[in-house]
Amino acid sequence: MQKNDIETLIHFLSKLPGLGKRSARRAVLHLIKNKQSLMLPLVESMANASESIRICSSCGNIDSIDPCGICTDAKRISEQICVVEEVSDLWAIERSNIFKGTYHVLGGTLSAVDGRGPEDLNIDKLIQKAGNENVSEVILATNATVDGQTTAHYITQRIKHLEVNISQIAHGIPIGGELDYLDDGTLGAALNSRRPF
Amino acid sequence: MQKNDIETLIHFLSKLPGLGKRSARRAVLHLIKNKQSLMLPLVESMANASESIRICSSCGNIDSIDPCGICTDAKRISEQICVVEEVSDLWAIERSNIFKGTYHVLGGTLSAVDGRGPEDLNIDKLIQKAGNENVSEVILATNATVDGQTTAHYITQRIKHLEVNISQIAHGIPIGGELDYLDDGTLGAALNSRRPF
Repeated sequence: MQKNDIETLIHFLSKLPGLGKRSARRAVLHLIKNKQSLMLPLVESMANASESIRICSSCGNIDSIDPCGICTDAKRISEQICVVEEVSDLWAIERSNIFKGTYHVLGGTLSAVDGRGPEDLNIDKLIQKAGNENVSEVILATNATVDGQTTAHYITQRIKHLEVNISQIAHGIPIGGELDYLDDGTLGAALNSRRPF
Repeated sequence: MQKNDIETLIHFLSKLPGLGKRSARRAVLHLIKNKQSLMLPLVESMANASESIRICSSCGNIDSIDPCGICTDAKRISEQICVVEEVSDLWAIERSNIFKGTYHVLGGTLSAVDGRGPEDLNIDKLIQKAGNENVSEVILATNATVDGQTTAHYITQRIKHLEVNISQIAHGIPIGGELDYLDDGTLGAALNSRRPF
């Protein structure tokens, strides 16, 4: 059976996160059934994206221009730098539509287990930016995990001598959350971080 | 933020079965991180596949040639036609490496609920093939679902007057299955289909 093109396609599709061999097969059949409406547009958009996408040399975001749209947007408050682990975190914060400052994408976290040190992350450029006198606040928005918090502590150590305010996004009860269903860690963090009402 | 290319790509990727908006976003970031090793090869293989893939006019299989590799393979036993619902079922049977005959892909099942009648399926061509004197056996391998069995019964009604043997793949206990964990339907089918030992 000559289905080399199909097998190659299944092979590469199955490497996407969230897709295994079986779901890649289903995806390929779905693509073939919807050639005009899905397969050809997908090929085109993926080719376009791979052609146009740049990694922002300033903040590590991805965009079709470098520096990225956020870094070059005059309406954004460039005094504020929100530090995130990955571009997906940046997208998540952008969707909330609350933050009007700029970002810095680390590209991961420090990890003793996985052997990732500061030199593996986009940290030096952050230190450099934090020392710039136009920057007034560094907001740490790494994940509330051990590695995320370790990274936040490390960054704090590196920039606390600079004249810049360091803050961290709040950890506490998620909106809509019920106390009875929360884990002890979140509840403890929420209590420790209580504020005057 | 100008990320139109990215958003278009996320839009189309999220239409694949098994991928939602969130996993499509993760997939896009993964693609961008692995541009050389994954994104570009994926674009190329998808373009190749969309260029080369044909639906076999004889059996409904997909391949880069028409008639497909199975239909044109002289080593396959063309007297036997295994009737399956979808190309994915054909692939599944091929992986088992047991069947050496040819196939006929219906493209779905009859369904009263979804309003699919015989005219929506690739049935007429099967009847025609079953009437061919070179064909000795039609093996019904539709799913063991209500719709699959309804379809099998319908096909039997249409071809039972022809001089062709009609068989159905066995329904019973899956290999490695334990009786205690099986549903009543499977156990009942296995008992009803018992054979001399």
